[in-house]
Amino acid sequence: MMKKVLTFGEMMLRLKPSENKRILQSDSFEAAYGGAEANVSVSLSLQGDQAAYLTKFPSNLLGDSALGTLRKFGVDTHKILRGGPRLGIYFFEKGASVRGTNVVYDRAGSSFAMATAAEFDWDSLLADADYFYFSGITPAVSPELQQAVLTAVEYCQAHNITVVYDMNFRGKMWTPAEAQAFSEKVMPYVNVCLANDEDFEASLGIKAFDGDMAHGIDQKESFKAGMQEVVKRYPNCHTVASILRNIHSVEDSQWSALLLRDGQFYESSVYQLHVYEGVASGDAFGAGLLHGFLHGFDGQEQVDYAIAASVLKLTISGDLNLVSEPEIRSIMKNGGSAMNR
Amino acid sequence: MMKKVLTFGEMMLRLKPSENKRILQSDSFEAAYGGAEANVSVSLSLQGDQAAYLTKFPSNLLGDSALGTLRKFGVDTHKILRGGPRLGIYFFEKGASVRGTNVVYDRAGSSFAMATAAEFDWDSLLADADYFYFSGITPAVSPELQQAVLTAVEYCQAHNITVVYDMNFRGKMWTPAEAQAFSEKVMPYVNVCLANDEDFEASLGIKAFDGDMAHGIDQKESFKAGMQEVVKRYPNCHTVASILRNIHSVEDSQWSALLLRDGQFYESSVYQLHVYEGVASGDAFGAGLLHGFLHGFDGQEQVDYAIAASVLKLTISGDLNLVSEPEIRSIMKNGGSAMNR
Amino acid sequence: MMKKVLTFGEMMLRLKPSENKRILQSDSFEAAYGGAEANVSVSLSLQGDQAAYLTKFPSNLLGDSALGTLRKFGVDTHKILRGGPRLGIYFFEKGASVRGTNVVYDRAGSSFAMATAAEFDWDSLLADADYFYFSGITPAVSPELQQAVLTAVEYCQAHNITVVYDMNFRGKMWTPAEAQAFSEKVMPYVNVCLANDEDFEASLGIKAFDGDMAHGIDQKESFKAGMQEVVKRYPNCHTVASILRNIHSVEDSQWSALLLRDGQFYESSVYQLHVYEGVASGDAFGAGLLHGFLHGFDGQEQVDYAIAASVLKLTISGDLNLVSEPEIRSIMKNGGSAMNR
Amino acid sequence: MMKKVLTFGEMMLRLKPSENKRILQSDSFEAAYGGAEANVSVSLSLQGDQAAYLTKFPSNLLGDSALGTLRKFGVDTHKILRGGPRLGIYFFEKGASVRGTNVVYDRAGSSFAMATAAEFDWDSLLADADYFYFSGITPAVSPELQQAVLTAVEYCQAHNITVVYDMNFRGKMWTPAEAQAFSEKVMPYVNVCLANDEDFEASLGIKAFDGDMAHGIDQKESFKAGMQEVVKRYPNCHTVASILRNIHSVEDSQWSALLLRDGQFYESSVYQLHVYEGVASGDAFGAGLLHGFLHGFDGQEQVDYAIAASVLKLTISGDLNLVSEPEIRSIMKNGGSAMNR
Amino acid sequence: MMKKVLTFGEMMLRLKPSENKRILQSDSFEAAYGGAEANVSVSLSLQGDQAAYLTKFPSNLLGDSALGTLRKFGVDTHKILRGGPRLGIYFFEKGASVRGTNVVYDRAGSSFAMATAAEFDWDSLLADADYFYFSGITPAVSPELQQAVLTAVEYCQAHNITVVYDMNFRGKMWTPAEAQAFSEKVMPYVNVCLANDEDFEASLGIKAFDGDMAHGIDQKESFKAGMQEVVKRYPNCHTVASILRNIHSVEDSQWSALLLRDGQFYESSVYQLHVYEGVASGDAFGAGLLHGFLHGFDGQEQVDYAIAASVLKLTISGDLNLVSEPEIRSIMKNGGSAMNR
Amino acid sequence: MMKKVLTFGEMMLRLKPSENKRILQSDSFEAAYGGAEANVSVSLSLQGDQAAYLTKFPSNLLGDSALGTLRKFGVDTHKILRGGPRLGIYFFEKGASVRGTNVVYDRAGSSFAMATAAEFDWDSLLADADYFYFSGITPAVSPELQQAVLTAVEYCQAHNITVVYDMNFRGKMWTPAEAQAFSEKVMPYVNVCLANDEDFEASLGIKAFDGDMAHGIDQKESFKAGMQEVVKRYPNCHTVASILRNIHSVEDSQWSALLLRDGQFYESSVYQLHVYEGVASGDAFGAGLLHGFLHGFDGQEQVDYAIAASVLKLTISGDLNLVSEPEIRSIMKNGGSAMNR
Repeated sequence: MMKKVLTFGEMMLRLKPSENKRILQSDSFEAAYGGAEANVSVSLSLQGDQAAYLTKFPSNLLGDSALGTLRKFGVDTHKILRGGPRLGIYFFEKGASVRGTNVVYDRAGSSFAMATAAEFDWDSLLADADYFYFSGITPAVSPELQQAVLTAVEYCQAHNITVVYDMNFRGKMWTPAEAQAFSEKVMPYVNVCLANDEDFEASLGIKAFDGDMAHGIDQKESFKAGMQEVVKRYPNCHTVASILRNIHSVEDSQWSALLLRDGQFYESSVYQLHVYEGVASGDAFGAGLLHGFLHGFDGQEQVDYAIAASVLKLTISGDLNLVSEPEIRSIMKNGGSAMNR
Repeated sequence: MMKKVLTFGEMMLRLKPSENKRILQSDSFEAAYGGAEANVSVSLSLQGDQAAYLTKFPSNLLGDSALGTLRKFGVDTHKILRGGPRLGIYFFEKGASVRGTNVVYDRAGSSFAMATAAEFDWDSLLADADYFYFSGITPAVSPELQQAVLTAVEYCQAHNITVVYDMNFRGKMWTPAEAQAFSEKVMPYVNVCLANDEDFEASLGIKAFDGDMAHGIDQKESFKAGMQEVVKRYPNCHTVASILRNIHSVEDSQWSALLLRDGQFYESSVYQLHVYEGVASGDAFGAGLLHGFLHGFDGQEQVDYAIAASVLKLTISGDLNLVSEPEIRSIMKNGGSAMNR
Repeated sequence: MMKKVLTFGEMMLRLKPSENKRILQSDSFEAAYGGAEANVSVSLSLQGDQAAYLTKFPSNLLGDSALGTLRKFGVDTHKILRGGPRLGIYFFEKGASVRGTNVVYDRAGSSFAMATAAEFDWDSLLADADYFYFSGITPAVSPELQQAVLTAVEYCQAHNITVVYDMNFRGKMWTPAEAQAFSEKVMPYVNVCLANDEDFEASLGIKAFDGDMAHGIDQKESFKAGMQEVVKRYPNCHTVASILRNIHSVEDSQWSALLLRDGQFYESSVYQLHVYEGVASGDAFGAGLLHGFLHGFDGQEQVDYAIAASVLKLTISGDLNLVSEPEIRSIMKNGGSAMNR
Repeated sequence: MMKKVLTFGEMMLRLKPSENKRILQSDSFEAAYGGAEANVSVSLSLQGDQAAYLTKFPSNLLGDSALGTLRKFGVDTHKILRGGPRLGIYFFEKGASVRGTNVVYDRAGSSFAMATAAEFDWDSLLADADYFYFSGITPAVSPELQQAVLTAVEYCQAHNITVVYDMNFRGKMWTPAEAQAFSEKVMPYVNVCLANDEDFEASLGIKAFDGDMAHGIDQKESFKAGMQEVVKRYPNCHTVASILRNIHSVEDSQWSALLLRDGQFYESSVYQLHVYEGVASGDAFGAGLLHGFLHGFDGQEQVDYAIAASVLKLTISGDLNLVSEPEIRSIMKNGGSAMNR
Repeated sequence: MMKKVLTFGEMMLRLKPSENKRILQSDSFEAAYGGAEANVSVSLSLQGDQAAYLTKFPSNLLGDSALGTLRKFGVDTHKILRGGPRLGIYFFEKGASVRGTNVVYDRAGSSFAMATAAEFDWDSLLADADYFYFSGITPAVSPELQQAVLTAVEYCQAHNITVVYDMNFRGKMWTPAEAQAFSEKVMPYVNVCLANDEDFEASLGIKAFDGDMAHGIDQKESFKAGMQEVVKRYPNCHTVASILRNIHSVEDSQWSALLLRDGQFYESSVYQLHVYEGVASGDAFGAGLLHGFLHGFDGQEQVDYAIAASVLKLTISGDLNLVSEPEIRSIMKNGGSAMNR
Repeated sequence: MMKKVLTFGEMMLRLKPSENKRILQSDSFEAAYGGAEANVSVSLSLQGDQAAYLTKFPSNLLGDSALGTLRKFGVDTHKILRGGPRLGIYFFEKGASVRGTNVVYDRAGSSFAMATAAEFDWDSLLADADYFYFSGITPAVSPELQQAVLTAVEYCQAHNITVVYDMNFRGKMWTPAEAQAFSEKVMPYVNVCLANDEDFEASLGIKAFDGDMAHGIDQKESFKAGMQEVVKRYPNCHTVASILRNIHSVEDSQWSALLLRDGQFYESSVYQLHVYEGVASGDAFGAGLLHGFLHGFDGQEQVDYAIAASVLKLTISGDLNLVSEPEIRSIMKNGGSAMNR
């Protein structure tokens, strides 16, 4: 029987000025819906997996629209709570060259942010799940959601549900101290851990990366040491995965990935990329990794598949990685780019 | 010397699906900025008057954009406070035929809504004002803003600044009981009062209109009685103005206006209209009325000018009445519609 | 337990020049997906009902997109077949005033048109259905689909599934003689029949309407006679419903409805309408009628509800009637058009 | 053999704010190309006639684009001169309801405006023409173009080419005194004359219309008298045609036409119209009239055809009447508006 | 006298999601018209040459629009047949970085695909032609069109019309075996042959390229051998031309060209390019080559001009190479990119 | 007290085809307003400085729109003259790869171009200025404006106002001989001089650059010699600044800057850039330089800040550099490109 994944987090309305415009000069916004864990669910569904998403949406047209987006791409939305004041929003100013992409959050007071831990009945919500996925953004939203996550992972450990935690540190949402305090509580329950770039230090207090985004790949050995430190500290965590990047400008970067699984390292090749939109690629990577677990990939296939999924996301506009498994496999094979006609 | 107007309220980001679309089917939003009192300031400025606007905007790109919109049209923005959590938003689904226009507010927790009464230093803010204008939306936002308005109007009365209050009742923001409680406190300081349709009953507890929007103009005598009741109750209020409407559908309506000024009634003619966008016409009317005071119009000219400004707004997209005095006068003269080339 | 509806037909890509443009002058097309029976399913789903849709989509990105649209709005898409050459397309040139809306079909050779009767395994497809809905467009597509429909309705009669047939005559797809030949075969199995305007004559050979679209409502008695003739001829048909229209121009028309149910006539009031897009209102009417059956409305409530749903569709762009039951009921009560804020 | 028409005038770049926007609020313009005589040529070509257009375009990309537009719709562009400083531009702010459409000309100093009479070698240009068409806009552009027109019509009279003059008075381009002075010179050569509304008085000094655009049709007799005065004054002018309008608002008007041909009057029926864009309908009327001459219509068919072409233009965006003869005939027959599918 | 070119093939409606979107996420399509041989005709016309295009378009608005596009750019369209079921369509999903551009064909059953060989009366169609140009796409459409091409080239050989054949192998349309079978029949009549990349092997069975698109230029010697093999096999073929490419990603590639003419090789320089849209550059190259023949360029000028035309196409959106001869020459001289103001 | 800058020049309507389109294929234009000196004023205002702009705008809606743009971004517009025939326009075809950006001027006969020197009352206009800024475009517009500039700079020298002259040579507006003749007159009054690339030779007759835009940075020593020649010739000129570029294609270039201030050279680092829109970066550089003077930066900080401002402009669409001082400083520190969320 097909295994099932439940992801838990916040999906927001994303408003992006048209083309390359800045907010100051734009009189329209492209509207899309996204959020780390929702992105993972959509990716899985488009790759043929069974993925449910859990959040809380307001009972208004914005909540309906976010819900409709998930349904359109086949995500199971039956567990989603409705109610509360509003849908979170984020404004997305796409960067160019030396001007980095700029995110203006308007997520305070959202239905998800105001939800209490008690609203989530994990017995029922996790009843049919094989994997439970959340990112560090969810606990960063509120103390109640930290509690909700902790209750969920306890349930998972007791019921043999694999827990996947993507650190995904957001400096605009909480401090490293807060993130580390939470990680300390949750990591004993985590089986699979994703940490990129600054996540090691900010979310785990492990120094693996010197902070220079132009030279991530060059620090592979240091990342490996950090990954080993994670599994040493938290024996329940059998897998750690990281994307390594050399980011030269908004458009120009190199990407590769490392996977430490059951004590063995696997490395992907390095992609030289022209980035269309550098958002949500970590979520695409996480979904690729899960897809590998769901279908019994070995470690090398898993890391190769996950990084291929991730770099494909860099070519797509919006938070959702609108690609299929054959498209990902085509990148794995030939690096893509040929015209198909 | 040119007289000066200060208006006080909340300006929001308005997000409207493109063309006729519903939120559920739209993947972009037209972005504009509007709010009752801001609209009045912009109207006055475009008609050549000196108008300042007072609000509180967040210190982010959305706040900058709202501010830029006001400056573009010549409004004095130097008094505006900056800070606080966010810019209020409203989603605007334009109706058609039998489907009424639908507004989804997302204004809770805005910088203006979270402002305290103490932040507004009226001594300085009203130092150079001749008129102070606010609508019922401002006190509906929060008790602190009710207090701010009451402090302001006391100052006005003490310093001979004319107070203009547009009832503008919003059922999604407060109850009639709350509105009436506030009106009781503020009306003794009000010199000019605007009340349309349901405002009489909801905001003042005066029964002037039976609630049938298809037959507003037919109830002219009842409105007159209501207006007279206002000036009887509140002797400081020398002027009451109302728009009367027969609304047959979103596109099709008739508009006229009544003015009770210094004990005498003035009536405009009735316009038969094809409505492009039925929003903010009351603000356009209020601005037209103020323009009449600023330039010494007699009562008949004032009501004719104000209703012409108001019906022009029905032909313009967005909250702002982007017309000049000559354009308004051209409507007064010939009812418009001829091509000018 | 909630009753279930299965609708059967073709959903196409609809390409419409932007705004009011003609194909000759347009360098972009708005893309949407629609088709009579798909429209009915979406309407039902948005009104809270359980509706499944049956068609055949190609296994390409266009088929995926059509499928995603159905899923977005909650339609059960699990029965849909995949395969075949292409998705049907229709170009939609919206008319204005005296220029009628123009449809250019490009549906020949579609996956649905090339499907054989044998591909539809009705035992399984209708296993959980309480209602089976199709329009005259489906049998007009091909003889194989005529056969498929006939097989389906036989199954329905044998298994107590209500059969609903919306005549929906399309002169660009088949001749009256062909339509009537099919009707003769299918009508003995039909329980609910929808026929508007020319349908009576073209699809049934019953003269109920003189063809003057500007004077449909004026011929109410003649329509009633036609409806009675239907139930007399086909005793299994317990319900006949018709929309009656006076169409003065593309934008300006009057709409009302007649319902003959279990021997009794019910009439709606007449709506005076400004039409935004005059397409798929018959489907909205059909969905409203079904919703009435599903929820046990009496005849008067049913016809009032169905025509309100239908006229709401005239205010919406695209084939899909994106409205909820409360919105429909609001039209029934007050005729709509008030701004809600 | 098919008869040939040469039209002579200025085609400009037309820039229109998107949708309903005013210039002040628009950050994009729809670009199209139009001009009275160019519009006539395109209309004729789309109706199957042989029409050439004469103007002068600059040798730059704007000139190429205007030329390409004409070619796209089949107009013979071989006679067009190239060179000079710039392409004329006009900004088009579409009105709504009481707000009339506003035209901002930016045509001074254009290649056509700077052309000298000597540049037009009429011997060659008119060698194969059967009809020569110009509007009052052409001589209003410059004294040199007045001279060019006068030289051309002399050639026409000498070579049996029918001269058609559409008065088309533009108050923003010249004064009535200037227009009348020109008319006095040119009318002795004119065979067919079109005059609408104010044209009689402004361009000919004949009082036929009181200037109230809401009551043009009501003054039919006065128009008839004016038309008779024209043919009396100018015996070479065997045909006079006029559009009569009651314009109630930008969207709402009634249109009909009068034709005086060879001493007999013909009247069209009156159309009740919802106007999408009220520009260039006079040109569509002129083209319809010419089409009638080219194909030997009798007077009644000619006026019926021309007014049907004209009211169809009111449903089309842009200056060009993108309709075919069958579409025009369909309006003549049933007043249009039925959906064709 | 100016020489004349006739090109023969299929022009389709091209539908492209806006900006970078995938079909799954796009609610509009940019509409353009293109097809290999039509592209060649437009290129030639914009470079000042006389080019006619032969195809069959349906007698509907889509056919009219395709025709209008050709006319707009000056192509002689008088030979085009009208009739048949539909205009072919192709959906164009522009790739990015590692995601290759994706083409979804919807061209089956088009008017051109259903045309019979007998419909093309080559005596008349080729009467005034000096060059006859077709690509391998045309015979791939149907056996009837293979026959039509064979009949045409026989006529050409008999009447001294130069035959130009651009291999243009399309794996989605026919197999290498089918392509080679056709090539064997047609090559004895071909005078000028264009073959790029895989064409040598797929269409001619000559191994010149190992299939690695990242290393085309590096295999120059192998290409030269293949080109010599062509002229050896087919003595009537005096000219073979090839584009050689190193394609690193959708945006990033190097282009150069080889020409074997009358036994001598000519090589262009290598361009380092940022690709905006990598479609139809082969057609632009073919047009450049023809332009060289039409104007008597020597071999070096010809290959330099053709590759410059080709790389300019990479900077243009749509199938049509909207550039002039001076613009192409400016690239030849300085490699372009300076701002011109 | 904050120092004040007055800039003097022409602001035009800029019309750009949407996305990458050429004028020939575009049916809409993005509308923005820009001009070298206006751009400088907007930059300064967004960086918190007090900047006024002087020009002459027509008294129409286009003039109002240009004015509104300046006000939106905080520029003091009170000195601007109104009147005259028209607003200048320029069409902007954005290039790609080897195809350079193409500008089509339509600025002849503008209100600014027709202004006389006598209209500018410098006593009043410069009364409160500390810096006067103009580019070589202003005197290139007309001899009257040359005179106006010369009168202004005399006033400046007499009143201790710093004169800044950005050479900004435009070959489409005047010849090198004309530019040099003007420079000879104006340079004795200039205190700060900006000269890039060809400016040295074209505007000053100093050979500093060999014209190869792909190798500007490589000629640093030659530029230094040119800069020293300037201060030697014109002792009042204490500062000369230059941008040095290696431009490889429209998207790909390297930028750096040189500053000679009070006898000492300062060099910036070299930026490797992906250019979004390569226009108005010189103006952004000039504004950065002025900002440095206004805030007492030393030479190194000044050149670093100015080049950072300049390269940020390359990432922004439109003529206006919509960035703040913190954003510029962030580029100075880390070269930008990190996502901020």
